[in-house]
This record gives sequence, structure tokens and C-alpha cells, in this order.
Amino acid sequence: MTRAATGAVIDLNADLGEGFGIWSLGDDMALLDIVTSANIACGFHAGDPRTIRRTCAAAVDRGVAIGAQVSYRDLAGFGRREMEVDPEDLCAEVLYQLAAVDGIARAMGGRVTYVKPHGALYNRICRDSEQAEAVVAAVADYDPGLPVLTLPGSAVHAVAARAGLATVTEAFADRAYTPAGTLVPRRSPGAVLHDPAAVAARAVRMATAGTVTAADGSEVAVDARSICVHGDTPGAVALARAVREALEAAGVTLRAFR
Amino acid sequence: MTRAATGAVIDLNADLGEGFGIWSLGDDMALLDIVTSANIACGFHAGDPRTIRRTCAAAVDRGVAIGAQVSYRDLAGFGRREMEVDPEDLCAEVLYQLAAVDGIARAMGGRVTYVKPHGALYNRICRDSEQAEAVVAAVADYDPGLPVLTLPGSAVHAVAARAGLATVTEAFADRAYTPAGTLVPRRSPGAVLHDPAAVAARAVRMATAGTVTAADGSEVAVDARSICVHGDTPGAVALARAVREALEAAGVTLRAFR
Amino acid sequence: MTRAATGAVIDLNADLGEGFGIWSLGDDMALLDIVTSANIACGFHAGDPRTIRRTCAAAVDRGVAIGAQVSYRDLAGFGRREMEVDPEDLCAEVLYQLAAVDGIARAMGGRVTYVKPHGALYNRICRDSEQAEAVVAAVADYDPGLPVLTLPGSAVHAVAARAGLATVTEAFADRAYTPAGTLVPRRSPGAVLHDPAAVAARAVRMATAGTVTAADGSEVAVDARSICVHGDTPGAVALARAVREALEAAGVTLRAFR
Amino acid sequence: MTRAATGAVIDLNADLGEGFGIWSLGDDMALLDIVTSANIACGFHAGDPRTIRRTCAAAVDRGVAIGAQVSYRDLAGFGRREMEVDPEDLCAEVLYQLAAVDGIARAMGGRVTYVKPHGALYNRICRDSEQAEAVVAAVADYDPGLPVLTLPGSAVHAVAARAGLATVTEAFADRAYTPAGTLVPRRSPGAVLHDPAAVAARAVRMATAGTVTAADGSEVAVDARSICVHGDTPGAVALARAVREALEAAGVTLRAFR
Repeated sequence: MTRAATGAVIDLNADLGEGFGIWSLGDDMALLDIVTSANIACGFHAGDPRTIRRTCAAAVDRGVAIGAQVSYRDLAGFGRREMEVDPEDLCAEVLYQLAAVDGIARAMGGRVTYVKPHGALYNRICRDSEQAEAVVAAVADYDPGLPVLTLPGSAVHAVAARAGLATVTEAFADRAYTPAGTLVPRRSPGAVLHDPAAVAARAVRMATAGTVTAADGSEVAVDARSICVHGDTPGAVALARAVREALEAAGVTLRAFR
Repeated sequence: MTRAATGAVIDLNADLGEGFGIWSLGDDMALLDIVTSANIACGFHAGDPRTIRRTCAAAVDRGVAIGAQVSYRDLAGFGRREMEVDPEDLCAEVLYQLAAVDGIARAMGGRVTYVKPHGALYNRICRDSEQAEAVVAAVADYDPGLPVLTLPGSAVHAVAARAGLATVTEAFADRAYTPAGTLVPRRSPGAVLHDPAAVAARAVRMATAGTVTAADGSEVAVDARSICVHGDTPGAVALARAVREALEAAGVTLRAFR
Repeated sequence: MTRAATGAVIDLNADLGEGFGIWSLGDDMALLDIVTSANIACGFHAGDPRTIRRTCAAAVDRGVAIGAQVSYRDLAGFGRREMEVDPEDLCAEVLYQLAAVDGIARAMGGRVTYVKPHGALYNRICRDSEQAEAVVAAVADYDPGLPVLTLPGSAVHAVAARAGLATVTEAFADRAYTPAGTLVPRRSPGAVLHDPAAVAARAVRMATAGTVTAADGSEVAVDARSICVHGDTPGAVALARAVREALEAAGVTLRAFR
Repeated sequence: MTRAATGAVIDLNADLGEGFGIWSLGDDMALLDIVTSANIACGFHAGDPRTIRRTCAAAVDRGVAIGAQVSYRDLAGFGRREMEVDPEDLCAEVLYQLAAVDGIARAMGGRVTYVKPHGALYNRICRDSEQAEAVVAAVADYDPGLPVLTLPGSAVHAVAARAGLATVTEAFADRAYTPAGTLVPRRSPGAVLHDPAAVAARAVRMATAGTVTAADGSEVAVDARSICVHGDTPGAVALARAVREALEAAGVTLRAFR
């Protein structure tokens, strides 16, 4: 397949700015040279203001799009624990985080162009319309032009559509898929793929054919405008780089979704 | 003195939104009916997002100006403890808080029109140019059109002037002044006045004559575009109301400074 | 009924020390003159160290038993939001809180004699054996002689029994009961009683007859060694005092359960 | 020099358990195989309960003494920023931290045998008697048998002596000393030594001769019962190991000070 032939366009996103104070997590600068969209922590699960500012500045320098990675208020649990938050509290917390990071991004010469909920909140609003409504209301109150980046078919898509808010779907090149096109739960054997070549090949197929080979060997459709890569594990940067290089070699254009 | 004769204009400011979660402090709604400027807590010394949002909305409803009451990160000490914060951290923390509250204010139909540092940070930047520069840099990075509300003659004024940032001075009608025009330290006997009639009379004199009677009986000049009233003590609302009524009776126009 | 005739003994417990920094909640000192057991906040949902120390000292002065009111880590939500906490984290968090308050109590001349989980954690371990096991393991690791104060029939009772840990049951004089002897959910109409005389009469019946009149008028058994009174609402102290006085008038002995 | 000839005994201490939630810092397990005393973070500058418990358990397994590394409440600044904390608050905060870690240590089969203040608090109480008194009062309230580990000649020594509390002095093998026997400030050139062989040789001389070569080449007395090694920098474990091996080769007995 030649570069001219494919015409495919994809975004690569990763979680960034997830240190806090003295503690760091992942190699933000290396990932910013690979991805086209940076989901920047907003201070509630990670991300002190200095880290947020430095990460925003570096993203602006490289032309990487900035997303607000809003979360439950849970530093001790890194936002990975579902919480029964009152929707009015949740809405205000998302608004606060989004405003803080957008303001910092603007001071650095950029701006937030999308919202990607983090961790347990991301998972929760895939199935809980009440919390999804709180998140969507916060984004709509702040800027109804900002899309929410999330899984296809999740509750938040329907909620956002009703509110007139755009959504953007993402796929995971390093995760196993069920024949129904959903992710194999993380605790199941084989749920996460580690071989860079295999992961990169899946990313190319997602971007060019819109499909992925499911755990049972069947080919299923994956509708994704962005592919998520991870940055917080050993070998993560190498894997992300392999994905980017394979996409470029396949003639796929890497570009943020706005 | 008739209303027409004076021509004096003054702003009344108070700290608001200083609850956190289940805990409340002061009577925000009563004070919002009295003041012309609301210094709204930004989450670092007080102010959860829901409280910030509700307070911003109520301020917008009443046409009260909104200021970002930025602070050290210190919920346990209510921002009243000086901290040796690295200037780069402090600058990013002020930027984060300012952006968060301005974004919420905008979502509620208003916007932040000034910055008033809180507690120990307020006191510190009256004499410490390094921390003052960090605060001023944050405000200038975010919006160089936002003035800083502070004491006349303090270090932050000189720093702001060098950075091209406006400052607005305030006076305290319920605090004793030295013959030099500075505040009598809070721990000294007689430092705080509690009699509403006396406090109100001082406010009128500050607004109309630009003077205050010092602790030694001398009359000293007080250059203030705003008068600060407090809201977190018993009787605070009654005292603030007495100040407002006395100013109105004296023909002083109560108006936010922008 | 004469004092000699009844022989009934009951404990009165209330949540105390639930301020944080500048913020206070309820009238701790008034309640300490009424209750026989103080559930003292441990710093995770409320309770800064200075407040904990002062409350422990006051409890010791009055001969009031001290319980560790352990909670999820959630200052912003006052521990009232259920959280999907990993059991190993939860166990360590409960151990940390229990040790902190017991150590402070000992430094003040007393000690923690029981554990009462707070808010959402209290409710969760009434039905979730996994989190109940985490709480029970922490208490057993710290001191297997400490009982857990909770609702009769809840999951934590079975878990504690298996671990050889004692439990103590409590009832709520100001809450409506179902004919099955469980609490009417707080959101249902009539779930909370406010009339001091009626609440006090129910407390006496719980202590002397071991029964309560359910919402449908039937009399149901309530097996309780302690009655919980609340302190954080207007009128709470008056209601608690009415309960105590009615119990004393009925000849019930008020005594902590250890 | 033979092992029999020297008779010297020294303690090696390091800061441990300084991760928080998802974030880790240093290689705790490797250091626990080298040191004889572990200064374990108490949750205020670092150290979540699960990390504290795991670190206490590992220290007990290896027979390493456990110290409570009490700190200002400052996760965002890692306890490295001086704070103007009210002495009554500080005393209660130190008591809370000490009790929490001692209780966890006891549940793991050990106990806290000393207190080492952390970071900015450590530095502050070397010169500020008021904060030193707050720390000493907390330790004395909890257990007057616990010594405080600190620098020789610091304010806290005099304060502790007056309160009947023991102190233990430490030296830093990787820090330059002035001819007066004090540490060269960290920001001065040459303040920190990085060559493992040189650092190890200094440690041996401190332990066997009680002296160190100052920055000007003079030999000055260093009275230390413990030597502090660091664990949070690249190469830290190797350097700590070099120190231990050199001490053992010189016949110095490595043993906790209690």
C-alpha cells in the first residue's frame, strides 16, 4: 500500500502530565514527540500546576493538541476508584479542572481542544448516564464546541448527542477485543498485548481498514478517530514509537482530530 | 453633606465562597447583597468547585464583581501560614487557581475582573518581592488586564508596576492604623474595632476624605479605592451592612473598581 | 416503672471531632456532656490532629469512651461517597486511622475502646463482605479486643465473627424502622423523626423493651447495646439531651459498652 | 585494622516509604538490606498507609529499626517547604503521624524506636526553638523513651534535653563540612559528594576516628551515632552499599542505636 493510496488519517493520544510534586510518571517529553494529542492531567488524580504548565508549554511547542484529562478527586487512588459522587459536585469538579487546564494552556499559547475523562470516571460514564450527564453538562457549560474523547457505543455518547456536544471515538491497539467489538476486561488472560510489532500492526489495520482481529480470530469493525497509547509502563515509549512508525510507513496521516 | 456634593466612589470587597465540602463559613448570600466585589476562594485554602460555582452564579445575578482569591495550597491551615514556596511552583499555582475560577465565572455568565491574594500570601507579597513576582507573573501570563487588589505601599505594587500590571489599593475600616498609615498588627491591643457605628464612620471618612484617625489620634491619609469588610465572624454581616448604609447615607457611590 | 425495676443499661454514641482546620461542625463539648461514647473522626473524612487531640482530652476528662470513627479518604465528600477501594488499601487506611487516634487518646490518658466506621464505609460494609473483611482485618491486626459498632444483621457481623472480633449493635431513635426491623431509607418520607419527645420515647422503649414501633404501626424487636444520636444539625444537642433525660427518668443506666 | 581492634559501632539510616499511591520513590527493598534504621514516611509529606505497612513489615523482617519520619503537612511540596505552623497544630500533627506509624509497626510485629523529622521541619527545628518544642512535646506525650535523630548542636537538642528526651546525632558522609563542623549549604559548589569510594572512606573515618575532612582541608570532629545515606537519587543504592561494605571491611559494627 502506498502513502498516496491509503488516505487514512488517525490521531494518537496518550495520558501526560501525570506526576505530582516530587513524583513523576512516564516520559512526557518522549511521548510528546510521538503523539498528536496529549491528555493532560488536571490536578485531581495527578498533575500539579507546575507540571501542567510545563506539559502544556511543551505540547504547544510541538503542535500537539491538548485535552483536559478530568478525573474524580482522588490523588491517593490515581482516579482509578469509582466514586458515588453527587452529579452536581461532579459537574462542578469537571468544570473546575477543565477551566484550570484550559487557562494554563492559553497562558502558554495554546488551548484545550477536547476533554478525555480519566480512569474510573472514564469507565463509569461508559455505562452510567447520570454521571455522564454531569460531565457533559460541565463541558457544555464551559465550551459546547469541545468534543469528549471516549469509547464507541458508551452511555456518554448518547448523553452528549442529546446535549449537542460532539464525541470522538478511540481504540486501543494494545488491548484484546471481543467478537462484539468491546474490550476484553483487563483482568482476563491475554487482555493486554505487549509485542510492539503485533500492536503496531493492529494499529495500522485499525487506521486503514477500520477493523481489528478479535480474541476468537474473527475480524470486527472498530470505528475510531484516535488510537490511545500508554506511557506509564516500562517499554511504553518504545511501543508508542513502534505504533507511530508503522502508521507512517503504511502511509497513514497522523493528525489531531481537530 | 448631600449626595450630590460628595462625588466620592468606593468599592466594598469581602472574602466569599470559603466553605469546603460539608463545612461552611460565613453567610455568602447576605454579604453578596452588601458588597460590590466578591473575593472568591479558589480551592487551595477553601472553596470546593460546587461552592465556587454557586458563589460565582450568585455574584453574577447581583452584578457583584468577581475576584480570584488565590492562596497557598493549605486547606488545613486555611492559607494563613506562610510557606517557602518555590517561585516557579507558586506562579503555576496562582495561574491554576485564577484560571479555574475565571472559567467557572465565565460559565456562569461573568468573569474574574481582579485578583486578591489571600491570607499569608497576601501578607507575604507585601514585603517579599520574589513571591510577589511569582504572583504578578501568573496574573500577567493569564490576563495582563487584571489588577491586583492589595495594600498601598506594599512590595507587590512596585513589582506589578514593573510588569505593567495595575494595582488597586484597599483599606480596612475595622482595623487600627499607625501614624505612618500602616495597619496596627492584629495581635496588638485595639488592633481590631468591633463597634459598627465607629467602623462605619471610619469607612465614610476613608471614602470621602481619604483619611483615617490613627491609634495616636492623628489624622493620616489612606489612599484606597476599595474597603474590605469581613464575613467570617459573628456580627460580620451586621457590621458590613452598617458600613454600606453609612456610605450610602453620606452620598458615597458604591461601585466595583472596574 | 422504677429505677430499680428496669435494670436496663444502654450506651449513647455520637460522632464528634468532625471539624477540619478553621471549619467546625456541631457542638462537641455539649455532646460530650450527654453521650457515653464518642466516635472521634480520624482525619480521613474530617478531624485535623489538633481537633482530634482536644476531643480526646475532653472525652477522657468526662469519662466518655473513645471510638475511632474510621472512614474512606474523602475530605471533600465528608466520607459520604462510596468508593471502590482495593481491600488492601482499605485495610491499611483503617489501620492508619485507628492507630493515629488511639495513639492520641493514649497520650491524653485514655484509649480507643471500639471502632465505628463512618458514613459510606459504614453503609458499604453492612452489605459488602469484601470491604468488611478489610476493615475487620485492620482492627484485628491492631487489637483483636476492639469491637466494631454497627447495625444488627449486617455483613460485617458475620465477617467479624469469623475473625473472632466482637461486634456491638446500635439503633437510631430518630429514624423510622420497617416492619422487618431495618431502617427506612433516608430519602423516603418520614424517614427521620424530629420531635424530641417522640424520639426520646422511642429511645426509652428501645432500651427497656428492646422494641420500636415500625412505620406500619407494628412493634418490632430492636437488639441494640447502643443508641446513636446526631450532633451536626440544628437542634441536635437539644434532641440528644431529651433522649438522655428520658432514659434517666425511666431508670435506664447510661454506660459505655465496655 | 582488624575487626577486633576498632570496636567502633555505627548506625546507618535512610528515608524510606516515600512513595504515594501510584507513585514510588527510591528502592525501599534494596535499601532495607543495607541500612540498620529506616526513617519511614508518615503520610504528611509522602507515604500512603499501604506503603507504610509494607515498609514496616519489610523492616521487621530484616531486623531494621523503624523511625517515624514526621513532617509538615505538604504532599505537593514533599515537606521541603518551611511553614509557619502554629505550635499547637504542629505538636498535634507530629503526635498523629508518630502514633499512626507506630501503630502500624506494632501490627506488623515491630515498633517505632525513634523519631526523625523530615525535610524543612528537620532544618527548621535545628534553629527554631518554638517549633522544636512542639515536636519534642509531641514525642514526650507519646513516649518519652523515644529519642529524636538530628544534627549535633541544633536547637532541638537543647529543647529535648530540657524535656528529658534523648537525642541521637547523625552525620552525612556525602556532604561537605565547614571547618566549624557544620554542613556546607546544599547550593554551594561541592556541597554534595558523588564518588562512592570517597564517600565510603569518609563514613569509615566518621565511624572510627570521629572526624571528617572539611572543605578547607582541615580535620574536624564529627560526633555521630548514625550516618545518613540517601535513597532517592540514581546511584543512591550503590553508594549506600559502598558505605556499608567499607564500614564492614574496616571492622565497624553496624547496629541500630537502640
